[in-house]
This record gives sequence, C-alpha cells and structure tokens, in this order.
Amino acid sequence: MIYFTSDYTEGCIPEILEALARTNEEQTNGYGIDPHCENAASLIRKAIGREDADVHFLEGGTQANVTVISSILRPYQGAVCAVSGHINVHETGAIEALGHKCLTLPTNNGKITAAQVQNLIEEHIHSETMEHTVQPGIIYISFPTESGTLYSKKELTDLYAVAKKYDIPLFIDGARLGYALAAKKNDLTIQDIANLCDVFYIGGTKVGALFGEAVVILNDKYKKDFRYSIKQKGGMLAKGRLLGIQFEELFKEDRYFRISEHAIACAEKLTRALQDKGYAFAFEPETNQLFPILPVEKIEELRKNFGFELWGEAKDGKQTVRFVTSFMTKEENLNALIQAL
Amino acid sequence: MIYFTSDYTEGCIPEILEALARTNEEQTNGYGIDPHCENAASLIRKAIGREDADVHFLEGGTQANVTVISSILRPYQGAVCAVSGHINVHETGAIEALGHKCLTLPTNNGKITAAQVQNLIEEHIHSETMEHTVQPGIIYISFPTESGTLYSKKELTDLYAVAKKYDIPLFIDGARLGYALAAKKNDLTIQDIANLCDVFYIGGTKVGALFGEAVVILNDKYKKDFRYSIKQKGGMLAKGRLLGIQFEELFKEDRYFRISEHAIACAEKLTRALQDKGYAFAFEPETNQLFPILPVEKIEELRKNFGFELWGEAKDGKQTVRFVTSFMTKEENLNALIQAL
Amino acid sequence: MIYFTSDYTEGCIPEILEALARTNEEQTNGYGIDPHCENAASLIRKAIGREDADVHFLEGGTQANVTVISSILRPYQGAVCAVSGHINVHETGAIEALGHKCLTLPTNNGKITAAQVQNLIEEHIHSETMEHTVQPGIIYISFPTESGTLYSKKELTDLYAVAKKYDIPLFIDGARLGYALAAKKNDLTIQDIANLCDVFYIGGTKVGALFGEAVVILNDKYKKDFRYSIKQKGGMLAKGRLLGIQFEELFKEDRYFRISEHAIACAEKLTRALQDKGYAFAFEPETNQLFPILPVEKIEELRKNFGFELWGEAKDGKQTVRFVTSFMTKEENLNALIQAL
Amino acid sequence: MIYFTSDYTEGCIPEILEALARTNEEQTNGYGIDPHCENAASLIRKAIGREDADVHFLEGGTQANVTVISSILRPYQGAVCAVSGHINVHETGAIEALGHKCLTLPTNNGKITAAQVQNLIEEHIHSETMEHTVQPGIIYISFPTESGTLYSKKELTDLYAVAKKYDIPLFIDGARLGYALAAKKNDLTIQDIANLCDVFYIGGTKVGALFGEAVVILNDKYKKDFRYSIKQKGGMLAKGRLLGIQFEELFKEDRYFRISEHAIACAEKLTRALQDKGYAFAFEPETNQLFPILPVEKIEELRKNFGFELWGEAKDGKQTVRFVTSFMTKEENLNALIQAL
Repeated sequence: MIYFTSDYTEGCIPEILEALARTNEEQTNGYGIDPHCENAASLIRKAIGREDADVHFLEGGTQANVTVISSILRPYQGAVCAVSGHINVHETGAIEALGHKCLTLPTNNGKITAAQVQNLIEEHIHSETMEHTVQPGIIYISFPTESGTLYSKKELTDLYAVAKKYDIPLFIDGARLGYALAAKKNDLTIQDIANLCDVFYIGGTKVGALFGEAVVILNDKYKKDFRYSIKQKGGMLAKGRLLGIQFEELFKEDRYFRISEHAIACAEKLTRALQDKGYAFAFEPETNQLFPILPVEKIEELRKNFGFELWGEAKDGKQTVRFVTSFMTKEENLNALIQAL
Repeated sequence: MIYFTSDYTEGCIPEILEALARTNEEQTNGYGIDPHCENAASLIRKAIGREDADVHFLEGGTQANVTVISSILRPYQGAVCAVSGHINVHETGAIEALGHKCLTLPTNNGKITAAQVQNLIEEHIHSETMEHTVQPGIIYISFPTESGTLYSKKELTDLYAVAKKYDIPLFIDGARLGYALAAKKNDLTIQDIANLCDVFYIGGTKVGALFGEAVVILNDKYKKDFRYSIKQKGGMLAKGRLLGIQFEELFKEDRYFRISEHAIACAEKLTRALQDKGYAFAFEPETNQLFPILPVEKIEELRKNFGFELWGEAKDGKQTVRFVTSFMTKEENLNALIQAL
Repeated sequence: MIYFTSDYTEGCIPEILEALARTNEEQTNGYGIDPHCENAASLIRKAIGREDADVHFLEGGTQANVTVISSILRPYQGAVCAVSGHINVHETGAIEALGHKCLTLPTNNGKITAAQVQNLIEEHIHSETMEHTVQPGIIYISFPTESGTLYSKKELTDLYAVAKKYDIPLFIDGARLGYALAAKKNDLTIQDIANLCDVFYIGGTKVGALFGEAVVILNDKYKKDFRYSIKQKGGMLAKGRLLGIQFEELFKEDRYFRISEHAIACAEKLTRALQDKGYAFAFEPETNQLFPILPVEKIEELRKNFGFELWGEAKDGKQTVRFVTSFMTKEENLNALIQAL
Repeated sequence: MIYFTSDYTEGCIPEILEALARTNEEQTNGYGIDPHCENAASLIRKAIGREDADVHFLEGGTQANVTVISSILRPYQGAVCAVSGHINVHETGAIEALGHKCLTLPTNNGKITAAQVQNLIEEHIHSETMEHTVQPGIIYISFPTESGTLYSKKELTDLYAVAKKYDIPLFIDGARLGYALAAKKNDLTIQDIANLCDVFYIGGTKVGALFGEAVVILNDKYKKDFRYSIKQKGGMLAKGRLLGIQFEELFKEDRYFRISEHAIACAEKLTRALQDKGYAFAFEPETNQLFPILPVEKIEELRKNFGFELWGEAKDGKQTVRFVTSFMTKEENLNALIQAL
C-alpha cells in the first residue's frame, strides 16, 4: 500500500533523528526554557526578519489554533473564518469547547476576501441588536487553505488592512506553510507573512518534523502571558527541547524551504499527469494537495494499492479525491501512482 | 409611539399583578421549592396530559435553552438547528460559551425537516474522520419558528421519529408556544407536543407573564440533577415562587390559550389588511409574527408613529419588516396601524 | 410556620407592586434600553456620587457574580476570595463552569485581609513555575460577608490599595449591601464603596425588590461591551424595564436605606434577646444575619414553629444556626421568636 | 551543572531512538489508528492482565488528566482530590478551564483517605442546599503522589470501595507509575492497579519515553466516544504512531519496570546518604522524589553545581528541597551529589 492520504504518513527528516540521538543525554530545563528552544526561536526570528517576534513551540496544530484564539478572544467574541476552515470543520469543535463561535463565511476555494470580512464586521457594528450576536474578535485564515489554494500578496494585504482598520487581529494557520511558500504561483515570502498578520504559526508536523508547530506573535498586544495559555491548553511539552531541536534542524541551511520544494515538485508532476489524462480539478492545483475529479471505477481500482481521501461527490457519478505529496514522497511511489492513473 | 416591535413591550395579564399583591406577605422557601411552584407544575402536567413530566421554572428564554442543552450534551456534541434558530443567531453565542457548536441546517422558512436531520446524522456516522467533527447530540427546533411558521403534526412526528431512531433528544423552544397552538393552521395540541419531544418549554415572557419559562422534561433520561444545572447557569430565582405564581395564573381557566387567541386574532386582522393592500410576505403569515415586504418610503412614513423591526433587504428596493402582535395588543393601536398602511 | 430562613422569603415593598401595576400597559423597548432603566441608573449614580458610573440591571446574584467576573478575567486567571465566599461555596461552581478557578484564602469570619491578598499575589509573581498556576485576576469580597460581618473603611481602603498596586480589580458582591450600610458598626457610606472598588453590585432581591441586582462599574477599563456579557450569560431580561421600575422605587426617597434600617433594628432586638439568654455567637452579630450557637434540644423545639438554617456543628453538642431578618420582618413574628427562645 | 530537578531533564531510552529511526520511512495512517499503536495497546493489555481494557495514547500528562476528567464529568460535577493534587496546583487551572471545580481534601503527605472521600460525599448528599454546591463526580489520586508517597493495597482497595459504593469513578494519575511499582515499600502490582480503579494512565514522559502517556479505561461506562475527547482537547497526535512506537519499546522485555528500578536504586542510595548526614525529610522517602530539609547555606552551596527545586520553607531557617532521580540518572552524577552533601 502506498499512501498519498496526507503529509503526515511518515516520520521526519533524517537530520532531526540524528539531532535527537546526539542530544539525548543532555540535561536541560523543561517546558520550553532551554538552549535549543532559544536557538530555534532565534533562527526563526532571523528567517522572518522580525527580531521583535515572540516564538513559542507547541505540540500540534489544533493546540496552536485553540491556544492562540482563546488567548486573544473575549468570551462574547468569535472567530471569522471560511466555512471550510480547519477550526470550523476538523477540530471536533475545539474552538467552541473553549467558548467561541466560528463566524463562517461562504467560499468555493477555501479562501475568504477582505470584502467579505469587512461586510460581516460592518453588519455587526450596525446591527440594532448587536449585543445579541457574537462579536467578530479574530480573523482566521489558512495559508495554504484546506483546499490547497493560495492567497496572493494583494489579497493578504487587503485582508490585513481590514483587520487593522477594525483593530481585529489576523491569525494565519500555517500548518502547511512551507508548501505555500514553495509553490510556483506564490508571491509571498515568509517575511511578508510576518508583516501581514498579527500571529501565525509555522507548521512542523506536516513539513519535516515528527511533530510540533512554531507560533509566532508579531503584535505586542497579544504577547503577554501566552505561556499560561500554552500550559492550560495542554500544549506545553515537559521535554520542551524536543520541539526546539526539531525547529533548529528545520531552520538550519534553509531546510524548511528546500524540503517543501520537493513536495511541490512531486505535486506538479502529479498535476501534469492528471491533466494529461484529462481529469478536472475541484480546486485549482496550487500546492501539495490535489483534488482531481475521478470516475468511481478508477477510484475503486486505485484504492487497491493506494491510500488517499475521498473528498465528496462530484457530478456525473464522479468523485473528488485528495492526493497529498510531502517532504518525504518517494519518486518511485509517485511514478507508481502516475502509472496507475 | 405605538409598538409592534415584539411581544414583550408591555407588562403582564392583570391576574398576575393581582396574585403578586395577594401573596406578597406570604412566607415561603426559596429556589422553586414552594407551594406555588408545586401547584403550577401540577396545572401544567394536567394541561399536557403527562403526570410523569418534570416541570422547572426558569427566568428567561436564553437561560432555558442554555440550561437544557448544556445539561444534555457531552462536551464533543453539538446542537442540530436551523441556521436561523434563536440559539444560533440571537443569544450572543451562549451555547458556544458553554462549549457546544451549533450544527446548522439551511432553511428558508425557519423550519428543518426530518430528512435534513437524518442526512446530517448519517453523514456524521459514516465519516471516516468522525472524531474530528462535532457529534450531533440534540435536535433543537422552535415552535413557532423565528419566522413565525408552524410545524405540522406530520412534520413533528417525522422529526421525532428520526430523533428516536438515533437516540438523540428532540428539544422544542416554545418561547411563543401559545401563539403556535392558537394559530388557525395549527393541527397540534399541547398534549401532542408533550408526546412528540423529549424536552420543551412553555414561554411565559412573551405570552402573558412578566417573565419566566416553564421547562418540561418528558424523557426520564434527562431529569436527573437538572436543578444543579439551573443553579449553575444562573436561572434559579431566589424568590422562586414568583414564577410559580405567574404560571398558576396562566394555567388557571385556560388563560394561556385564551390570551394567545387574542394575539392571533389581531395578527389575522393585520394580515388581511396587508394582503388587501397587495403586500407580499417574506414568510407565510401563520402566527403572531408577520413579515410583510414594504416599499422603503412606506417604512419611513410608518416609523414616525410605529415601532417595528427591519428584517432585511428584499428585492426592488423593498424591505422586509416584522410586526408582532401579543396578548396585550390593543384594538385601537391595531386599527391605527391598519389605517396608516 | 414563621420563617427566619433568609431575607428572600417574602415578596417586595408595596411601592414596587404599585409601580408595576401603574406601568403595566406602558409600551417600551426591551433588554434594559428604556426610560425606567435610564431613570433608575440615574438615581443610583446620584446616590453613589459618581456620574461616570455605568449601571446595569441583572436578574440575580449568581448572574451578577458570573457576568462581572467572566467579563473581566482572562482564561488563565482566577478569582481571589475567602474560602467561605459565595462564589466558592454556593453557586454550584458557576465561576468554574465559565473556566475560572477560585483562589481561596482562609478566614474565620468571612473576611479576607489586604495582607493575605498581597501575599498570595507576591507568591504567584515570584514562583519559578508561575505559568503552571492560575494567575490572580480579580479580588472578590462580599459586603456584608456571608458570615454577616463588615469590612471597616480602613480594611476596605487597604484592600483597594493592594488591588491598585497590582492592577487587579476589586469587585464587591453587595447582595445585602443595604444591611451593611444600615448596620450600627458600619463606617462606610455608599459613596465610599463606589470609590473603593472597581465594580460592585447593589442587591435588590434581598433588599426590597422582587428580584434584580444593579451592577455598578466604576473603572472605565471594564465598561466596554458589558451588555454582550449580560446577554450571553442569560442575565438580560426581555422586559428589562421590570428591573428599572424596581430600582426606581428603591432609590426614591432613600427607601433602599430606610427599609434596610428596619431589618437591622429587628436583628439588634433579636441579638439582645439571644445575648440575654446567654447564647454565644459563631460570628460577631453585625448585620441582619445572626449565627447563635444553640443546644440541640432548643433547636428541635424551635423548628416546630420556626424556619431557619442549620449552619454546622459547634462543640459540646451544640449547633450553630442562622436567623435572618429582612426589610419585611414583622414585629409580631420577631416577638414570637424571642418568646420561644 | 548536574540536574536533579525532575525526571524529564534528559531524552529517552536508546531503544526508542532506534525504533524511531527504523520506522521513519514506514507509511501509516495517522491519529493513533496504526499497527504500532495497536501492538503497544496489546502489550499493555497483556501487562495489566485486562484484555477488555481500552488503551489510548496521549501527548502529555495535563492532557491526559483534562481529557479523562472532562469526558466523564457532567457540567455541575467536580473532581475530588488532594489539595496538593497536580490538577489542583500545577496545571494552570486546566480542569476549571473546562468547567469543573477541584473539590479539595487536606493532606500532609499527598494522599487522601477513603474516609475523607466518603465524608465529603455524605456531606454533599445530606446537604439541604446540595444543588447550590458542586457535586462530586470523579475521584482523582496520583500514584505515586506529588509528595513521592505511595498508597498501599489496603488503602487503594478502601478508596475504590467508596468509589463503587457511590458509583463515582476512581481515576489514577500514573505520570510516575513505574517508580511507584518499583519502590521497595510498594505492595501493588500493575494488575492490581487495573483492578482497583476505573481509569488510570501509564506515564511515559517521566519514565523512559520522549513524551506520551497511555490512558487505560477499565470501566465500560467511560469508553464510549473517548477519541472525540482526545481530538477536541488537542491530544490527538497526527503522527500517532510515534506514541505507539514508544510504548511498544517500553513494554517489550519488561523495560518499563526495569528502567524504573534503576531510578529507585539511585533514590535509595541518595536517601541513605541524606540520612547518614542526619537530614530530616518533609515527606517519607518512598519513590524517586526525595524532599530533604536542608540548611539554607547548604542549599546555596549546592545550587552552584546542581539543579533541584526549592519546595518551601521549613522551620529553623531551613528549607525543603526536591531531588528527583530518573531512568537516566548517571552513577557519576549521583556520586557527585552525594559527595557535595
């Protein structure tokens, strides 16, 4: 069985395993206060060009979302997001479990626009019964989105302008950030990202690490007491250095970016193969998640040897599926899939 | 200024004021353990034909919804409801504040169907990643709905069949229950209601009382420890008898039903007047909430002398507005509005 | 049966019943935006000598505590309070239900001291693992306390100095505020109260009203968006004017203070009678709650004709009980109790 | 600097690093549904002698506590625990953040007794105002306790009898379970543990793993839907197999027990050295956490070369400190400390 189910079907880059072995007998303090976390944070600050950023390492993506959002919102505020946003559909209501509503906006490509957000905020502000409704308190977007699509620099700039206009923070879920930055169509650098939002996180789990996400807080207003939130939400790793060590390795020698390029190259090759066969796509293929529409018989045939997700009905008895490439995708596996298509 | 803004612009039926004066010097225990609450519960049990029902008196509608729903759900469960449901749009996220997502279904008349609910549940059950999504844990409907519409006996029977099939309780928000039962089109009795759901509440605030709602629990499974929830959610009135006294008066001599008939008669008269003028309605006029579509100039003119809610844009530069009649609507005020139309 | 169980065994002052009858047919907007609420707020602002105060009317005491505390705290913060504080022992964990720990301090008279609070804060600040513990975020005291005792002006001034030193707000639960202010030993005016805390509430339920508490916010920092919190926590009465009408009556002609004096006079008479019989008290008798220690046989005898609470074991086979007088205590009932003692 | 600060200052047993390297290129499904998790669960079921147990792997201890407790309790219920219990003092109010009060019992050695728990429950049940107080809903103990002490088989049997008598589940926090089982004084086997509680967890973070805890659910009543809770509380690792791989290695060839014995042997050697010097202990030295009382000058001297925690003031100008040995404590470091004493 060959898996294209997700970008977390394998382990990590070999340098991380080596570093874990090398540092295994070192003694350090716990909970993220150690030289490795310090060094990793410093490498990230350098990479994003923001010496003033606070960097925290958390165990996983749901935790990162939950910890950031709940540390910012007041109890009567909610998170503006795409109806397809990860926090709205794939975290078992973790945001609601902490008391906050997802204020969803319709989308057909995973993205939301500055105009949509502005309308939602304006409507709230001008409502005669505003106190009976949830106040927009944070804007959540994913880059790339859950549909594998990208915000352009123009789109992100516009979104952030709305955020600043209403003094509502913009938070970017970067679970797959590396793959967005490495994409052909992308016109944003990681420095741009850092300057066009209040908080974002750099995904490790799906991009080279065993696990771990680096939360980067740019806006001073949201820095205070963040470690209390990490601990309370269960995201503070006892052996915190494990996260520091992993991000040290990822941000040495631009590895984070180079391994992402591999996934994108694989995705592009697969895209061409799918296009050659004449398959349409449910969402524009822009990063490492591809959503081709395949005939049901083809899907059944492929499922004998390949793992991938069914993404929903399409018309004419076809179905949308999802293929995901990653930093570890093997040439031979990719070729086998292309062959089988 | 004459108000048709809502059914809570005035006070209460005179019998309640008399009873409050009559009992003012009585001494009783607090927190709903007193002869008046006992007697009121008994009158309600008789009216609904269910001697086995638990009856609790709460201060208001949001509290009733929040207390019932949070006492039933597990932390990872959500409330299935219409996207226009009161809990989804007009309670400042009170359900989410207690940890639960609203699992919304589209509607264009405030109602949801048995088929919609069944589909949502089936989709959840068959999802490969079900644990990443919120589990449907309760079905919430309003009778009448927030659009003033009614479920038929057939529709409610079907909904309850789905609820029982999947062992998910059906909860009916009856903030305006009296007006539903008094409506011409209605084919449900209050006994039917009690037999076609697991929990419902009988609204007092909008139907004759100063304040207060009577929560009726039919399914034994949800009776245990409900008073803890009332207290914790802030709905346990110290002078609990005030609620008992009000519901005693409402359920003496069928008053609850008779005062509702008055509101419906007023609404029907207003409906005919609107129809005579050729106005269309955004939702079918079925109870005491009417949603005619009026030209903007007409609205501006009316607003000088009448209070009513703007309900949203309609096409051709017209707007939907809401007129609400109540148990206290005066003939002369109604005639003044009809005149002004 | 004659009740000295609490100060909410009867109804309200007659002026409130008259006002409810007089205004019953008035039409007003709902949710606390009406002329009565406006006028009542204005009367309160005048009484406390603070034109800048925000005044909100809520339905009950648990709601007032929950709404104020949860609107101020961050998720990782807790409420510093006496171990005997109402929020810690008699609200079914309502504070915790909204996510916040009670950080309790020991007491043997219901009061906490400035030194205790300062120590707790200092210990937190200097802890090496502070982020693993709950941060003190608000100081909660009751005036009078749950033991019927009073803070002196000196004690309250000291507490507020600590609060300001660490920028942690001081919140006073005034469920029985009137009785504290009317007490012989008291040296604080309601204007002092308003100047020695950030938020307090004026209890109506136990002091003359049918129900309702007036939350007074003095510190600008905590005024923003408070109405969202009221609605979300279920404390926003649809017919909000009912609260306005009640507080209008209470604050006309100094009624709030005069009716409190009646309760205190009754309590003093009862105290003298108890002292004459040689009974000791578990807490110093200072307001309208008295905690004499009685022999078990005496208690059993009294319980045949009188309602009162058992407050816990004392030594030598005796028990502490609680007698409460109120704004409605009748001379004849008081004499009957004194006789029976 | 040599650390005796905690049992999580180093990495993990070498077999885990080897296994991670060996399996790095394997492809598996995520979220704990993979052959390694399956195998690890099977090894644990065998070790505890309960084929019917559900085993789940979570990322850390706070998560394990939070996920178990919040999945069991109703909103108005709290967790009975020692005032020194980890959930009460060192998780930033994570239990309260999910809505539940810690119902604390006094202790001077970290343990609570069956009699204490029974009294607390009985008092609640017989309270006239029980609905105004938090209902005991789960009993939480740590084995070993936060003071390094042990429950005897008799004590645990008695506690569990109370739990069963009142149908309230008993949950054992086994963050350091290995060290308890390996202790000289211990008379409980891991099979006993599994038969004397409803849920417990086997700590990996502090006993050989990089991170991870194995939650074991024995009582069928609490098994349903547990994976929803894991996901919602942020404890579901995307590359779930990392946890499976670690527990596979720990439960092969009795490693979990053998590495624990090493820590205990080190602790015993250190205990003897401390006793030889005439130092007293704040708590009986029973496992791998030792709490000797040292003169302040000695502490200052030791702190130059050794890391350890200050645990609080003792009398006569002395202080209690904590030394912790672990599965990785080196003979040479231990000797250096003994020398320095």
